[in-house]
Amino acid sequence: MVLSAPALAQDDDAFYRDMFEPLPALPPIPADNSMTREKIELGKMLFFEPRISSSGVISCATCHNPALGWTDRIPRAVGHLGQEGSRNTPTVLNAGFLEAQFWDGREATLEGQALGPIAADVEMAMDLDQAVARLQEFETYREHFAAAFPDDAEPINADNVAQAIASFERTLNTPNSPFDRYLRGDEGALTEDQIAGMRLFVDVGCASCHNGPVLSDSNYHVFDAPGSEDEGRFVVTGDEADRFAFRTPTLRNVAVTYPYFNNGSVEDLHQAVYMMGDQMLGYEFTDGELDQVVAFLHALTGEMPAITPPALP
Amino acid sequence: MVLSAPALAQDDDAFYRDMFEPLPALPPIPADNSMTREKIELGKMLFFEPRISSSGVISCATCHNPALGWTDRIPRAVGHLGQEGSRNTPTVLNAGFLEAQFWDGREATLEGQALGPIAADVEMAMDLDQAVARLQEFETYREHFAAAFPDDAEPINADNVAQAIASFERTLNTPNSPFDRYLRGDEGALTEDQIAGMRLFVDVGCASCHNGPVLSDSNYHVFDAPGSEDEGRFVVTGDEADRFAFRTPTLRNVAVTYPYFNNGSVEDLHQAVYMMGDQMLGYEFTDGELDQVVAFLHALTGEMPAITPPALP
Ligand code: HEC
Ligand code: HEC
Ligand code: HEC
Ligand code: HEC
Ligand SMILES: [Ca+2]
Ligand SMILES: [Ca+2]
Repeated sequence: MVLSAPALAQDDDAFYRDMFEPLPALPPIPADNSMTREKIELGKMLFFEPRISSSGVISCATCHNPALGWTDRIPRAVGHLGQEGSRNTPTVLNAGFLEAQFWDGREATLEGQALGPIAADVEMAMDLDQAVARLQEFETYREHFAAAFPDDAEPINADNVAQAIASFERTLNTPNSPFDRYLRGDEGALTEDQIAGMRLFVDVGCASCHNGPVLSDSNYHVFDAPGSEDEGRFVVTGDEADRFAFRTPTLRNVAVTYPYFNNGSVEDLHQAVYMMGDQMLGYEFTDGELDQVVAFLHALTGEMPAITPPALP
Repeated sequence: MVLSAPALAQDDDAFYRDMFEPLPALPPIPADNSMTREKIELGKMLFFEPRISSSGVISCATCHNPALGWTDRIPRAVGHLGQEGSRNTPTVLNAGFLEAQFWDGREATLEGQALGPIAADVEMAMDLDQAVARLQEFETYREHFAAAFPDDAEPINADNVAQAIASFERTLNTPNSPFDRYLRGDEGALTEDQIAGMRLFVDVGCASCHNGPVLSDSNYHVFDAPGSEDEGRFVVTGDEADRFAFRTPTLRNVAVTYPYFNNGSVEDLHQAVYMMGDQMLGYEFTDGELDQVVAFLHALTGEMPAITPPALP
């Protein structure tokens, strides 16, 4: 549904608030991967572990860098041997709330996602069996896997690597943004411009795709990012309607996850918002409106997880 | 001076203790780079900043990784475009206590050292002017440089980058190792094996080169690491006596900074110690002695600095 602007323009604060929901403390936890302290701790080690890459120096944290909003802030990811991939690195912050992973949604869950980058030639370029064998060499990992997966006779295996990483990722959430505080009743948490921006966001129709706790419908929509030849969801489904369609990204922390779009082609948030209005909704923002929407998007920056680097063996 | 084993074998604990000194809280601070909170904070940002590399993904912390004892735990460093350098990455922990930086001592100070890796083709491969220009683009950096260098009209320059990084590095010390506690009078801080290892370390003559607060004389000694063709200090001085001579590395945290030697050719600490005895002192350790010396070296692992990744702009 694309809502037309005038139809929804209302003055009722409660109406706008009800369009959104504050970020829950945790994303949904799958029944077959309960979250335990041991798994989270192990997952954190693996997330920062460069020795499961073939060069020995690239870890998940290389591209999903905690110092850079858990992304890399370059247009397209740079991985093994400095090769540039074709897509922008999304943040892993709040990724547990997405119902489809990757720009093309080719994995449904964080568990399904986690092994991809280890093996991918342009990312960590490591044979999975070798990665598992490498981990088995370390007594510390043998202990941590045994503690995290006490029912498994041979706990160090690829599935458990994925389960542990996914459990850690589910802790990487950013609660208490100004917007969350506002939604919980703290009127002063947003500036007037931010409130105006929130109203525009609803009235113009952004919330038709950017909705739910992380402002993403986890669905696919055609978008023509400058310079992108990526066929997006089509690569997965082969369905003509999916050609150049991308999964709606989260807008939480979008102010710190520049550059924007599937190929990182746009650095400026004003421009990204302008293009969304134009292409997705046929709406041309004025400069003043752009400032307000961008101010609103800044209110979506939450508290970063306080992660200290693990002590690896 | 190389002390022969029997000459020094004594039973007096105080004698052995007096051969060493606990790690001071801070290394010497140069008169022209006073340590301020603002410089340290800025230096931390720069240490973790990948956008001053030409690929945009390599920072000091890539090779001096806090999760890996502030080194990379691979034989030879891997940098720009996955190129392998020829030398093992030393830890930056306690580097402020060394009077010569790099395996060949080609820089005397951390300030002199800091810009090298940014520009080095196999490390970050970035033109220094470009690195400075990149930093100038960020308002956050403009503010931080101005706060750290309030007397400078144009505070964002290469010298100040070096000063800030060096100031941060001087905070990366590892006090309170079991050995430090022992030296301060806590008899129980070392096991019997570790005390025996400490005595051997003195009696056999290791302390003739590995002395002072970080167990390094910051001086050069010829050593033939397996497979190394590196001419070491000779490259700097052109002096025949310096061919294949390397600066004595710190032994603090040596248990967590494997692999060993200038080319990272030895993974096992027992073997490294055996080779030191053999080549440097003509002394052949028994297996039991090796265990004791290695146990002692494990007592040199101190408290890691509790660093959280900075929030970069
Ligand atoms: C070389 C850079 C690089 C490395 C290393 C890397 N990633 Fe990614 N990551 C990316 C890119 C690029 C994408 C988007 C790929 C796509 O959509 O096809 C991505 C996507 C993701 C996503 C989906 C997020 C979303 O919004 O769809 C998650 C989760 C993720 N990575 C986690 C990890 C984990 C876990 C590791 C380590 C096992 C890892 N990444 C290693 C670059 C990297
Ligand atoms: C029809 C669905 C839809 C609508 C309506 C929509 N978006 Fe999007 N949005 C998307 C999709 C899909 C992407 C990813 C496009 C890409 O990168 O190829 C996206 C990307 C973005 C991005 C970049 C995020 C990033 O991390 O790269 C921003 C910012 C954004 N949208 C804001 C808005 C705003 C503001 C509006 C209203 C003016 C809006 N969107 C309307 C689906 C939509
Ligand atoms: C690509 C890997 C890599 C990167 C990036 C890197 N270093 Fe190093 N570092 C090394 C290697 C290898 C050496 C030893 C080189 C030699 O001795 O010639 C070294 C040596 C050092 C030393 C001397 C330590 C000693 O015991 O002699 C310091 C201090 C240091 N680096 C700090 C830094 C800083 C600061 C940065 C970022 C500005 C940085 N390094 C970036 C690999 C790297
Ligand atoms: C004559 C000086 C000298 C003596 C004596 C000496 N060392 Fe060393 N030590 C060095 C130098 C120089 C290196 C670096 C060699 C290289 O990598 O090329 C080194 C390296 C080491 C290393 C590897 C450190 C690292 O991080 O790579 C260990 C461990 C070590 N020494 C322990 C000992 C022990 C134990 C003894 C006594 C048995 C000893 N050393 C005697 C000078 C000495
Ligand atoms: Ca982005
Ligand atoms: Ca080493």
